[in-house]
Amino acid sequence: MSALEAIKYSRGKLEVLDQLRLPHEHHYDEVSTSEEAFDCIKAMRVRGAPAIAIVAALAASVELHNGSCTATGTEDVIKYIDSRLDYLYESRPTAVDLGNAVRLLKKTVRSVKTEGLTDAEAKEAIIKAFIEASEEILAKDLKTNKSIGAFGAKWLQEQYKITDDSKITVITHCNTGSLATSGHGTALGIIRTLRDEGLLRHAYCTETRPYNQGSRLTAFELVHEGIPATLITDSMAAALFRLRKAEDNIAAVIVGADRVVRNGDTANKIGTYQLAVLAKHHGIKFMVAAPTTSIDVDTETGDDIEIEQRKREELTQISGAVVNADGSIDTSKSVRVAIADQRIGVWNPGFDVTPHEYIDAIVTEKGTVVKGEDGKFHFEDLMPERFQ
Amino acid sequence: MSALEAIKYSRGKLEVLDQLRLPHEHHYDEVSTSEEAFDCIKAMRVRGAPAIAIVAALAASVELHNGSCTATGTEDVIKYIDSRLDYLYESRPTAVDLGNAVRLLKKTVRSVKTEGLTDAEAKEAIIKAFIEASEEILAKDLKTNKSIGAFGAKWLQEQYKITDDSKITVITHCNTGSLATSGHGTALGIIRTLRDEGLLRHAYCTETRPYNQGSRLTAFELVHEGIPATLITDSMAAALFRLRKAEDNIAAVIVGADRVVRNGDTANKIGTYQLAVLAKHHGIKFMVAAPTTSIDVDTETGDDIEIEQRKREELTQISGAVVNADGSIDTSKSVRVAIADQRIGVWNPGFDVTPHEYIDAIVTEKGTVVKGEDGKFHFEDLMPERFQ
Repeated sequence: MSALEAIKYSRGKLEVLDQLRLPHEHHYDEVSTSEEAFDCIKAMRVRGAPAIAIVAALAASVELHNGSCTATGTEDVIKYIDSRLDYLYESRPTAVDLGNAVRLLKKTVRSVKTEGLTDAEAKEAIIKAFIEASEEILAKDLKTNKSIGAFGAKWLQEQYKITDDSKITVITHCNTGSLATSGHGTALGIIRTLRDEGLLRHAYCTETRPYNQGSRLTAFELVHEGIPATLITDSMAAALFRLRKAEDNIAAVIVGADRVVRNGDTANKIGTYQLAVLAKHHGIKFMVAAPTTSIDVDTETGDDIEIEQRKREELTQISGAVVNADGSIDTSKSVRVAIADQRIGVWNPGFDVTPHEYIDAIVTEKGTVVKGEDGKFHFEDLMPERFQ
Repeated sequence: MSALEAIKYSRGKLEVLDQLRLPHEHHYDEVSTSEEAFDCIKAMRVRGAPAIAIVAALAASVELHNGSCTATGTEDVIKYIDSRLDYLYESRPTAVDLGNAVRLLKKTVRSVKTEGLTDAEAKEAIIKAFIEASEEILAKDLKTNKSIGAFGAKWLQEQYKITDDSKITVITHCNTGSLATSGHGTALGIIRTLRDEGLLRHAYCTETRPYNQGSRLTAFELVHEGIPATLITDSMAAALFRLRKAEDNIAAVIVGADRVVRNGDTANKIGTYQLAVLAKHHGIKFMVAAPTTSIDVDTETGDDIEIEQRKREELTQISGAVVNADGSIDTSKSVRVAIADQRIGVWNPGFDVTPHEYIDAIVTEKGTVVKGEDGKFHFEDLMPERFQ
């Protein structure tokens, strides 16, 4: 099957897969304006920090390409573009990548040399630079993911000397695939590369309660691309390792990261730390896939990361498409149902921190980092510029 | 609040809490015939091995008390009673306790001395013996649970020397409370006793995916009785232990058992093994609460227990009462929704086996058993009659 694309783009046209309709419907929305992008992000039809930034930048590009800017003169054109970017930024102010994209694009339009140009020429040059920079964000993200996939597969190959007779099985958590990025994915990108290189035997994905990114999104991606895959509940990981490690040749748990700090401690979706403890206990490698943009060298250890509590209804209620009496799914009817006593107290941290002790490798687009003799990760060699 | 009763009984009248309507509705069905008990068990309105056996025995008692038996003469009366028991047995042939109850009641009616009695007197004597034996099953189960509660709380008190300033927090999995037994419960019975004795600070319960016995039933019981309690997803246990062990004084994971074998290996709801590994890793005691009837001394180790796979829809779909747009729950409308890609492969073992290495104590109605110097559990002292 063809690779899954959450974002389809050609100059002047952007289509975005509506993730709220997944996994039951495979529907693309055309996103041609900043307003449409804002709605798309706000309503969670697109999710994943890289994907949000890409949709915002490309939607602004499409609208500029199609003549939305009626201002003239360098200053007014930049003022117009700034206003669109500020507006888009408000769709998800907490998303690091979106903030980075907005800053980059603002810088880009300011760096265009417009001296000696007519107003029309200046406007054209600025818009062209904006569009090219947006397209570069898309291209760079895809390149980053492919690179993470290649480095991750290479590291596993080095550890296990995988042959046709000893293909490996891996397990992943949450969604880190094409649906969260420009394509390929980070942790799921490594799984894609393993499959492409004939090294993958089987992939397991966890449900990833309470928001079920695993069962809704990762399961969809795995099925869509014909990767042999099995869904388990989060409670089954240890039993899986104990009962099927030998038979399935379970070699690694591979997860993404919200943030990796200076010593390698990693914040990621709730349940990640638990998988890391269980992997170590059962002699299974634990890998984190993270672009270097997710590495925060200004925070020393994971203890400095504050953990947000999310709302109780994520545990006590769930939405889904209605299952008819005959077992068919009515994709037109999404219903919210109560799945717990509504009065019970709830503890719902959005993510947890996995101490570096439990992590065997952190895979970035620049290479794979393992711990030094002091038992800590060191990112100085990988990105010396950030340690100056 | 008053103690939760899933089974309300007085001679000639049986009412059973409809667990399918929990946690949103608190409705009792009157169960006056074997047919009504059969439906109640078959439809899962009552669940839990002890509770099923009690409902079957008491329903037959109510119907006999109300004159359902038109046969006369010892032989025909016994034949009639056998036919009712055989019919009831078919409602859940896999339930150990139900089989035990049927055997006990058949034996009871056969042991009634009817020589020298008139037909009417013989019939009355047999029915009286049946009713008393059924009532004894109920009473004995309740006594067993109260005893498990007391022994469990005593053991924890011995371990931790709990004072008013050092009350403990515990975590439980699945449902082992009043809803699965005659009352009080096994693992949840220990929690009830801890609370009654002023030793409990807080109780956490897991969702217990995929069937959500924790969020639907245990959460309901805890709320119903005003026990301070918090629900977590199965994926949060390790993060809870890491972040809140000190602050909450988390002392023990307490679970029930489907079956404990000779060396202490314990089969229980899927996710139990994972909790045991995580408890050990975080220095938290792991306790199994099990009546001696659940201890199978004929099976040497857990490796001899076969693990059934359950149906895939348990992971990919879920049922619940509809949540209206205003957030209220419409208890009259239960809907089944799809929560995962319906095409994904699923691994769904109904339970797992926790090796005895991970278990600190097995609490029965006859006392608490800890491991011997050989690192294994020995049940000989507890029930020498089964080792002859």
